[in-house]
Formats: sequence, C-alpha cells, structure tokens
Amino acid sequence: MVSTDTFLDFFIETREHTEAICKPLEIEDYVVQPIIDVSPPKWHLGHTTWFFEEFILKSYDPSYQIFDEDFSFVFNSYYETVGKRVVRADRGNLSRPSVKKVYEYRDYVTKAMIKLLESDTNATLLEVLEIGIHHEKQHQELLLTDIKYILGNNPLLPKYSDTFIEYTADKDEQRWLHMKEGIYKIGHNSTDFCFDNELGRHKVYLHDYQISNRLVTNAEYIDFIKEDGYKRFDLWHAAGWDWVQQNNVNSPLYWHEIDGKWHYYSLNGLTEIDLNAPVTHISFFEAFAYAQFKDCRLPTEFEWEAAQHLFTWGQRWEWTESAYLPYPNYKKVDGALGEYNGKFMVNQKVLRGSSVATPNKHARHTYRNFFQTDLKWQFTGIRLAK
Amino acid sequence: MVSTDTFLDFFIETREHTEAICKPLEIEDYVVQPIIDVSPPKWHLGHTTWFFEEFILKSYDPSYQIFDEDFSFVFNSYYETVGKRVVRADRGNLSRPSVKKVYEYRDYVTKAMIKLLESDTNATLLEVLEIGIHHEKQHQELLLTDIKYILGNNPLLPKYSDTFIEYTADKDEQRWLHMKEGIYKIGHNSTDFCFDNELGRHKVYLHDYQISNRLVTNAEYIDFIKEDGYKRFDLWHAAGWDWVQQNNVNSPLYWHEIDGKWHYYSLNGLTEIDLNAPVTHISFFEAFAYAQFKDCRLPTEFEWEAAQHLFTWGQRWEWTESAYLPYPNYKKVDGALGEYNGKFMVNQKVLRGSSVATPNKHARHTYRNFFQTDLKWQFTGIRLAK
Amino acid sequence: MVSTDTFLDFFIETREHTEAICKPLEIEDYVVQPIIDVSPPKWHLGHTTWFFEEFILKSYDPSYQIFDEDFSFVFNSYYETVGKRVVRADRGNLSRPSVKKVYEYRDYVTKAMIKLLESDTNATLLEVLEIGIHHEKQHQELLLTDIKYILGNNPLLPKYSDTFIEYTADKDEQRWLHMKEGIYKIGHNSTDFCFDNELGRHKVYLHDYQISNRLVTNAEYIDFIKEDGYKRFDLWHAAGWDWVQQNNVNSPLYWHEIDGKWHYYSLNGLTEIDLNAPVTHISFFEAFAYAQFKDCRLPTEFEWEAAQHLFTWGQRWEWTESAYLPYPNYKKVDGALGEYNGKFMVNQKVLRGSSVATPNKHARHTYRNFFQTDLKWQFTGIRLAK
Amino acid sequence: MVSTDTFLDFFIETREHTEAICKPLEIEDYVVQPIIDVSPPKWHLGHTTWFFEEFILKSYDPSYQIFDEDFSFVFNSYYETVGKRVVRADRGNLSRPSVKKVYEYRDYVTKAMIKLLESDTNATLLEVLEIGIHHEKQHQELLLTDIKYILGNNPLLPKYSDTFIEYTADKDEQRWLHMKEGIYKIGHNSTDFCFDNELGRHKVYLHDYQISNRLVTNAEYIDFIKEDGYKRFDLWHAAGWDWVQQNNVNSPLYWHEIDGKWHYYSLNGLTEIDLNAPVTHISFFEAFAYAQFKDCRLPTEFEWEAAQHLFTWGQRWEWTESAYLPYPNYKKVDGALGEYNGKFMVNQKVLRGSSVATPNKHARHTYRNFFQTDLKWQFTGIRLAK
Repeated sequence: MVSTDTFLDFFIETREHTEAICKPLEIEDYVVQPIIDVSPPKWHLGHTTWFFEEFILKSYDPSYQIFDEDFSFVFNSYYETVGKRVVRADRGNLSRPSVKKVYEYRDYVTKAMIKLLESDTNATLLEVLEIGIHHEKQHQELLLTDIKYILGNNPLLPKYSDTFIEYTADKDEQRWLHMKEGIYKIGHNSTDFCFDNELGRHKVYLHDYQISNRLVTNAEYIDFIKEDGYKRFDLWHAAGWDWVQQNNVNSPLYWHEIDGKWHYYSLNGLTEIDLNAPVTHISFFEAFAYAQFKDCRLPTEFEWEAAQHLFTWGQRWEWTESAYLPYPNYKKVDGALGEYNGKFMVNQKVLRGSSVATPNKHARHTYRNFFQTDLKWQFTGIRLAK
Repeated sequence: MVSTDTFLDFFIETREHTEAICKPLEIEDYVVQPIIDVSPPKWHLGHTTWFFEEFILKSYDPSYQIFDEDFSFVFNSYYETVGKRVVRADRGNLSRPSVKKVYEYRDYVTKAMIKLLESDTNATLLEVLEIGIHHEKQHQELLLTDIKYILGNNPLLPKYSDTFIEYTADKDEQRWLHMKEGIYKIGHNSTDFCFDNELGRHKVYLHDYQISNRLVTNAEYIDFIKEDGYKRFDLWHAAGWDWVQQNNVNSPLYWHEIDGKWHYYSLNGLTEIDLNAPVTHISFFEAFAYAQFKDCRLPTEFEWEAAQHLFTWGQRWEWTESAYLPYPNYKKVDGALGEYNGKFMVNQKVLRGSSVATPNKHARHTYRNFFQTDLKWQFTGIRLAK
Repeated sequence: MVSTDTFLDFFIETREHTEAICKPLEIEDYVVQPIIDVSPPKWHLGHTTWFFEEFILKSYDPSYQIFDEDFSFVFNSYYETVGKRVVRADRGNLSRPSVKKVYEYRDYVTKAMIKLLESDTNATLLEVLEIGIHHEKQHQELLLTDIKYILGNNPLLPKYSDTFIEYTADKDEQRWLHMKEGIYKIGHNSTDFCFDNELGRHKVYLHDYQISNRLVTNAEYIDFIKEDGYKRFDLWHAAGWDWVQQNNVNSPLYWHEIDGKWHYYSLNGLTEIDLNAPVTHISFFEAFAYAQFKDCRLPTEFEWEAAQHLFTWGQRWEWTESAYLPYPNYKKVDGALGEYNGKFMVNQKVLRGSSVATPNKHARHTYRNFFQTDLKWQFTGIRLAK
Repeated sequence: MVSTDTFLDFFIETREHTEAICKPLEIEDYVVQPIIDVSPPKWHLGHTTWFFEEFILKSYDPSYQIFDEDFSFVFNSYYETVGKRVVRADRGNLSRPSVKKVYEYRDYVTKAMIKLLESDTNATLLEVLEIGIHHEKQHQELLLTDIKYILGNNPLLPKYSDTFIEYTADKDEQRWLHMKEGIYKIGHNSTDFCFDNELGRHKVYLHDYQISNRLVTNAEYIDFIKEDGYKRFDLWHAAGWDWVQQNNVNSPLYWHEIDGKWHYYSLNGLTEIDLNAPVTHISFFEAFAYAQFKDCRLPTEFEWEAAQHLFTWGQRWEWTESAYLPYPNYKKVDGALGEYNGKFMVNQKVLRGSSVATPNKHARHTYRNFFQTDLKWQFTGIRLAK
C-alpha cells in the first residue's frame, strides 16, 4: 500500500492521461456510438468522473456539492444499486451535456478530489480511490479502442495521430516452450493493486504442454484466409460458424482488400499491411479457428500465467480457451462495487497479457481481461499452444 | 416563372434561413440520430448543399471544382441513380466531416452558385434551381422537427429557443362546414412552383360532407385518453392496435404525466399543457382512432382541398384518410429527380396544410405531404369530417 | 333475400365443400404453419365452425350445449370483442385439438345448425347465417392457397391433386379497351349478398383511360426478369426495392430455375412453366414494377369495376393501384361482426376479380379483396392500364 | 467391448424404446415445433434412423438400397460434412414425410441393420454402431422433454401418461459433505462406452469444498420467489438479469399460479406442486441466482465428479459452474462424427448426473451434458456447494 502523496500524483497523472488521449479529437468525435459495444468518448470522460463523485466525494466529503443531479443518471453504467441505469444503446443519442460541460464536470470533480486527498488519509477512502484510478485506466484502454472504431468506420478514414505506434514487430523465430506437468499457483500474490477477480490465489494441476514464444503474424493469418479458413466449417465452433455466415466475416476488423492487396486502418490512417506485425482485431471465434487450422489450440489462462515469464507479452491481449469464471474462494465485494466483475462471469472468454492501448502501470501477469466471443474491436492477438 | 434576380434572392434567403434554424445548436446537437426517421442536423446541412452541387454545379458550371469527392457518398440520400447511398441508419455514426467542414462546404457551394446564377440565365437550370430551393425548404421543416426530437428526447430536456411559437390558440367554437355533392377540380393550377405530385389537375366527384372549421384541441384529446381511447381496440385499425400494444403508446409524443398533470416538451422547454392548443405529435393511427371515438372520420385529401378556403389552416399538418397515390396522368420526371416523389407512393398517408415549422413561401393548398401511419415527430394535427 | 330452404342447402353445400378441399391431405398437413400468413388447415376447419357456434348457436338456440369451452380460445381469430385471441403466430404450434376432434366439432355444429335452421326462420339469424356462409367461402380460398404453400414449400414437393386446373390459357391477342371520361357508379347494387365494404354505392369521376383485355402472361413476365427487372431500382417503389434486396426476390413464388429452364410448383406438382398461362403469385410490388417496365400502370379499383364487363376475369385476383379504404358513407356494423372489414382499411391494396381458388357463388364484380403489398401466396395477377 | 450378439440386442431394445416413448402421441403431436430448441418427435424418429443409414448401411452394406434420397436432406442435423443441413427452425414446417412414412423408414433401416449385424462382425462397424445407439438414447431423452414442451404449452394441457413418474421425493435432511483439498482424477476410465468429450482422463487440483447431499426442493425455491429472488439484480449475472427482464421470467417453466397456489404441468397433467420434489425446469441463470440467494455457489463439474459417490443422483440434470470446454488432450474424431461434441464447446454450461428422462444404460458419473444458460426445458436441478 502506497502513501497518500503517491496516490495524489497517481490520481492526477491518470486524470491528465485520459484527457491527453482525447486531445486529437474533434468535438463531434466525442458524441457518436457506431455500435453498442463502443461508447462515445464523452461518456467515458463523464463516467470515470462520476465514479469519483459517487463513491468518494458523496461519502467522504460532507461539504461536497453535487455538480449536476442529472449526471448520475447519464453517466452511471451498470451499477444497478446506485440507480436506474441509462439503456446502454442510447448513449450515442445524447448530444447534451455538451463536451465543454463534461470537461467542466471533470475539472470540478478533479479539484474537489485533490482538495479532499490533501486533507484526508482515511484508509477505506484510499482503497476506493485506488479502484477508481484503475477503473479510469481500464476506460483509457476502451477510450482508445472506441476512438479507433469511430474513426476507422467513418468513410473518410481520418487518422488519429501520426505518432501512435500500434506494435513493434517480433524478430524471433517461432519456437515451442515446453512446460512440465505439475501443480502451479495462480492468482495475485503481492500487496500491489489488483481487481477482485485475480484474488483467491490457488493451485491448479497442469499436464505437459507447449506454448509458442511469439504471437501469430499477419503473414501467417493471411495464409489462413488464402487456404479458405473462413470457408471450412470444420475449423469453427458451431456458434462461430453461424457468426461467420450471418456477418459475412472474411478478415480481421479494419482490413480492406484494395486492388488485390490487404490494407488496414490503424490509428495512423490507412496503409498496406505489415506482414511481420502480430495479427490483431480478431474475435475469439477466429482465434480458435486459426488454432484448429494449425492443428494447435489456444492456451488456458492457467497455462498462460504459468509460462508467461518465458516469453514477451504486452502488445496484444491474448485470447485463451478459458471461460471467465470465479477463482475458488472468489468473494464478491459488498455494495455497488461488488458489481464490478462477478456479474460478468458467464459466457465470456478470458484474455491475458495487455495491449498497446493499455495505460502505464495497468498491466500485470495476473490481470484477467474478458470479452464475448464475437468481439473484435480490442487489440486482441493469438498465441498458440499444444 | 420569375426572373433570375428574384431567384438569386430567393436562393440566398433560403440558404441563410437554414443556417438561422441551426443558430441555437451546440456542435454536439448536429451529430446525433436518436431514431432512424430523424436525421442529424449536420446531414441536412450537407445534403441540401450536395443537391446544388450534384444537379446544378456539376452540370452547368464547367469550371466548378468539386469540394470533396467523398461528400457525394456521405450526403446523398435516396438518389439511387447518382450512386450508392449511405445506409440511412448510419448517419448518426458519422462524426466526420466536422460541422465546421460542413459549413465550409455550404459556403463554398453557395458562393459558386451565386457566381453561376449571376452569369447564367439558362431556363432548365432555373427549373432545377427552383426544385433545389424548395427541396431545401422541405429540409428546413425536417430540420426543426428533428432538432425538437433530439432535444426533447435528451434526459436534460434542453430548450431550443425562448421565442419560437408552436401555435396560436384558435378562439372559434367548433362548427361543421357543409359541402355540396358534385364535381371538384383537384391539383395545382398556376404558374407558381409545385412538386410533380401536385400536377395532373383532374376532376373528382365528392358526395355531401361536413368538415370541421377547426382542429382538435389538447383538451379534447385528453378526453379521449381519459375515456380509455388507448384501451378500446374497437376504435383502432388492427395494425394500429398492434402498434399501440407493442410500443405502449398512451399519449402524443413529448407528453409526460407529472404529479397527475399532463406536461409536454416544446421548443421552449417543458411546460404544462395548454388545453386550448391544437393537439400535435399524433400518428395517423391515433388521428383515426380519435375520429372513431367521436363517431366521425378524417377527411380525404380531396375533401380537404375542396373546402380549405372555408377554414384557417397552417399550424399543423392535417392527417387525411387518403393514401398517398399518383394523380391521374401523373408523370415521373426522367433521371435522378424522378425519384423525388413517385417512389414513395405506397403505404403512406397524405397530410394537407402546413405547420408552424413550414418555412415561408413553402405552403400552398395543393401541397401533398406524406408519412407512414406510425410517425409522430412532425407537427401533425386532426381535423374531423363526417 | 332467399328462403330458409335455399339457405339450408347453401349452408350444407358450403360445409361439405370445405371438407372436400381437405380430402387429399395427410393428417400432418393439417397442423403446420410455415409462415405467419398461412394458417394450418385444421385451424380453418375449426375457425369457420366456431363462427357459427359463436354468432348463431349461442345466440339463437337456447338448448345448445357448447362443444368445448376451450375451442373459443383456440379458434377465434381477430374478433377482439369476443375474447382474448390466440397470437396468430402460435397456430402452427398446436398439435391439439386433434384433426379427428376438429372434424367431430364440425359435425356437431353442422348438425346443430341444421336442426336450428329447420325450426327457425328468424330474419336476423338468416342475415348472420349468410355472412357465416360467405365467411367460410373466403376461408375455402385461403385453405387452398395455404395448402399450396404448405406442400409447395416442402422439400419433397408433394402434389395436391392430379385434376385441379390452375388456369385456362387466354387465346386473345392483347388489346387496349378505351374508356371514356365521366361519372361512374361504384359499389354493390342488388339484393344479393355482399360484404359491408362493397356498400355505400357512390359516384366517381374517371378520366379517359385504357385497360388491357387480358392478363400478363408468364412469357411476358420472363421478359421482365431477363431484362433485369429485379435489378433496376427505378422500376420499384422505395419500399418495394428494400423488400427485393432484403429477401433476394428474383421470380414469382414457387418458381425454380432448373438447368436454365423455369419450372414451377402447381397443385399438380413440379412442371415446366406454361408460357401462355397468366403469371401468378406475384406481390403488389412486383405487379407495380412490371407495369413501370412496360411504361404502363395498374388500374384503380374504380377503373377496373367500370370496365370489367368488357373483359374476361376470374382466374387471378388482379392487383389494383387503389389502397383499401372505406367508400363514402361506409358504416361499420355494430358488435363483433363490425371487426370484419373496417379494421383492415390501412396499408393494404385492393385486388379485384376472383381466382381459380374462389369457390362457387363467391365471385362478383363489386367484390373487394385486399392484401399487404409484399404477399405472394394468393393466385394474384396483373392487368395493365394506361 | 461387448460381443455382436449383445450389441444386436442392445440395438433392437434401443430402437423399440424410442417407439415406446411415442406410443401415447397423436399423429399431430409428431409434427409441431413450438420453439427452436424443441424438435418435432417425427424428426427425432427420422434423424436417429438416418444416422444408421448414413454412417453404417451406406458404408458397410454394399447391397443396401437407400430408402429415399431426400431423407438425408430432411433428417440430417448438424453434420455439415455430410451435406447441406436443413435450417433447424424449419423442422416444424414439414408435414411430409408423413409419420407413417417415417415409421416405414425406421422399420426398413432397423431390418437392414439387423440383417447386416447378423452377418458382419467388423470392429469399426461396432464402434460406430455403439455411437449410433448412444446417439439414439440421447435423442430419447430429448424426445421426452420435447414432448413435454409440446403438450405442456398447448392451451388444452393434455397429459402424456398416467404412470410416468417425474421424481421420487428425497427424504434426507440437507447436509454438507466435506471434501478434502488435493489432486483428483477426472474423466472416463473403463472399457465401457463413453463420448469423446469424457476422454483425456486427467488430474485436477481441488481445494477444500462442501457439497450438498441433496437437491434443492420446490419448497426452497418458492422461498426464493417469495423473497423477491426474481427482482433482486444483485443475485444475477448481468446477462441473466437482462434475460429475466426481457422474458418476464418469474418461476420455473410449466409453473402456473392459480388462485394464489403454485401448480405445474407434469407429464401426468396439471397438478398442485409437490413441495418436497426437487425443483426442475430452471435455467443456469436461475440456478446461479438461487445459489447466490443462499450465499452458496454451484459446484464445478470436477467437484461434482470427485464427490458424486457420496450422494444420490439421477433425477435431475445438475447445473454446474463449469463452462463446457475440452479436457486436456481432447482429440476431435476425424470426419463427420468429429462434429459430434467439440463444435459445441463454447458458451455452454456443463450439467452432470442424469434425469428421469435419461434412458436405461445411458447414465454414468463421467457423462457431460451441456446446454446454453437460458434453457429450461430439460429436467434440470440445483445442488449447492460452498
């Protein structure tokens, strides 16, 4: 557990980073919601702010004046205990509060937080603060991937930045790392911050397995496409095959075939594909089918965690075969914060590692990310096992 | 047919009026599309501009440089002959081009048009110009009703203006105007502008009928609600009854029952309902059910046109019993402009008159407006007949 | 008005004819509902029986014992005044009551009706009886077209009959019949039976028009297909074009292209298309697009009625341009029978004439049939006008 | 591995048992498909027959004449390798082949199989035969639950049988069975038949846990309902809560509250609920919420298998917390039979045990059943763990 001072810096730096991510945006970009899974940037700005107002200022600062009563309705997300949530699909219809007003809200809450943190060193407060900061960091990742979706699905394909680097190509030859059968310990094991879903450190028994030293590349994935990977139902889950048919899926998200050559939209605009880059923006269904195509499989999250010190990770969230389930002795926190993780532990898959969109101090080897099996807009990737 | 000079003024005034309507908006308000029938204001600004670029500047001004090739894709609407249209539902996802850019586009095209009109007096050009101006006026009405929808469905219920007047209460007692059986002439009959759907002036035979001197008021409509009008299936078309059930319809659009009193959102914000105001924002299904409730019916568009000089109209578009169909000898214009009206002549109802949102010089007694039977977001009204 | 004796014969003959239509069916054929517009034959048998039980036996025969209380729930259709209807989509899920039980119900009610009719000559009863008989005749037509759909969409394509004749080819050359401008009288005008929607005989003013002496043939319709009729959006209503795209429509219902030759399923099984036969199983959207293709239009129902004595009709229900609307002075009957027609008078098109599926004594030149614009499973046809 | 003789008896007995299950049905009951998850009994009869024709007779009996070429199209299910499958939703529209014809098909194939088995002792054939028999046994269970759904959702609520016993009440007091931390072996471990998803026997590490000696009863589940279990979102997964809201779920399937008392439809008809019977027809979502309500959880499939010898099971399929995933070293069989299990290993939950609908010789403690989290029509149950 770190000191209040450190927390104050951490808090300020986090708030500033969120705003830095939005720097290149036009006001219009803050407002739209092209698909239900992508939230308008404006909403991310307001929601992360509302979290501090709702769970800290209202509880720990008796002198705090709520900025606007209506905002709790507009910027709540899934916290059913706090009040009636806005139907998520509606977020993209809300032109008001304006972006300017949302920034005023941020500023107002940030200042009130700083004032409070300078005077109060309550341990419970710090615990919630730490969650709030990491909550905002989670939204920083989503903010970036949502911005990519908003710009990358606009017919004008505007670039976000000239300097954002989506990957560094891996120079290593593909090798199999051999792991020995035995008991392994899984889960968080330090005094650093983690989410509740990483707790309940426990033993698992793993059989001999091999895991790849590197991620699947675009060149390798193009082989899959060329050899009819999207047309061979035997490679797919039944649900995955239906998804391919219904959505005419035939490539990763943001890929465009132009004059016989694969291009993709990145945050730097539309370019030809780099064959050496790790493939990204594929769903679990595609990751699984690719593994079948190679007569391999995806690792479980336990296999991944047990072997992760042997390979480089951090560019792409890596799909695992594991369903997102509670660890043994998982305990849901009481109250509204208890809704944070447990309620999503059904029909989703675990992703391990982190990505180029993951903010500073937010990646760790016990982190469990999770998404539905058809979603592609995160910087996902494939690491094979067998 | 008026002179080029007059047209130039008419053109400039129309362009300016569109922009005046948007004056009170925040940039964010230009971008959203809460339901498929409501277009983002930004799109109206661009689409009306694209019309002049596509049908006039590209054809009549050899020196004209297209502002941006992509805009034709973004701002086309239903003109299938000109190119692949954007799926309408997607309009609300487009953060770019920015509002600023769209205004630059407007300015660029307006100036090019003025330059062209000052030099060219080509009669065909003037014909298309006249259509373009009236096309923009149609969009002015939609712009205002779309803005009302965007703001009136925002949980903050922001007002549009302090001064916009949605109606003037009618002081007249309700009376029945008696019309005599006989042959009446229907359709446009002057050298003034009209749309193609008003042409083909022709005779219809009307039997004796009576038509009300004034519109149904909010007070009268509240009676319908109180006496279970929304619960008596015998008052409704089968399709209307299904619509009521599926959407839990129980009042006009924008009405809210607060502490037992009816309120509504108007362009001036949320207020108590004025009982003397003409009821508005009701669908054809509701207008029909209300007429049944009063043992009356809605007039046909022919009855309306034959009697319209006997009563005041112009506050509310008035639903008629008539389906939107071609007049005898209706001729579709050749080319892209032929798509303007004829292709919508199925499964819609005619509305006659005009509304408080109808711009200057755009109302006339032969005008045929038309909408699907479930739509409520226009300033619609009810006039009874029997 | 005819005598009770005649009515008794008419009643018995009608009841027998319904059962004769079902003769060739397997029990399984009585049960299924492949699309919402097609009812299971079992339901037709029960519903037409329920009509007599509900509206005659329960009101006019004090000694009558209801066959089964539950049947009123199962076999009611749209008569909201009589009780909560079964959701129509569910009809195809009901394995019980069994076909045997439904025939027992028919028999029970038919016998009770005969007994009643032999003793009672009440005029009101006879009026309802006449409606009931014609109601059953309407269902005879639907029964046959629903059976065709059930068998014609089964992958085994079982034939219904070897002898049913779907058309007699028209030998006449196509000619235009010229009709003179003037006032025409429209609507029922005799003491014979008609439905309420034919009443309110009234005058209409028609301008000069021409109407074809014969229906469009399969050969002519194949030209439309060959010349890209289904690919030229300019021929279609906007709603029709969407319907074509969404459903990949490219031919009349029941047509199959096998080895480059058009075949169709008729009640006699799968055969090559007869080029001289009148085209059938086309929607209003297709009829309209075909007329556009030929630079013609469809007649209004008034034009059809005014000219119908000049040509042969009766093989195909003929789509008209007219929306299904009430005639002037149309009066809805009080009570449950008032739901018969009026509630459907929105968003449907009128068909005139009759078809090979229309039973004996059920066709007349004032008859107004009506369907939604996308439906194809009736024996519809196209007669051009200009 | 058993002898051919034993297999022959096993085969014959299985074929006869399928037909015995259908004995009480009317022909109409064989045809309908009220929801997509419920197949028409006729289809089960045909599909289990087709399996023997397709995978045995066509491969191992050179003299075999296919009964009807079209049946492969009609009765295939998900075997994409064998041919284009029928869209599953369409099964309930097929009145033909008739029930009589399907029984002829069964008879024809059963006889051909007997003839073949009397002459051929090929080991590969016997392996496929064994799968075919167990495949038919799986369908026997579905047949019974599908019949329950078909009759139990008919407004007449016809009973299936007077003698079928849906449960025997458990007399034991609820107790917690304590299980020790350690390594356990999971998976099939004998020469008896099992499905491929049970293979890959492997070690798992379990921590200390407790598991209930008996299933949750109706009385206990009624407490959950009374104490607002369906209204407390904190008990539910987010996806479960959405499901409850969208479907207005408020009780197990087949439950009806009549005059303030809970009744249910069983295969014996409608009766008052037996409070001591194990609750059934609940989805995974409900099982999970109930466990949360009791501050417990559901066991994992590994915990269940490790403890199963300590309690009685076999009346209800028991929902587990485990997602349906491949065991380590799971190998998909080559060819069409490889589609049997692996393709469903995503977004489903494992159920362990068996039910009153499970046929003879089909239950074993390593059996892994699996369904989506919202399905209720199987005889599911709840066993708590902590």
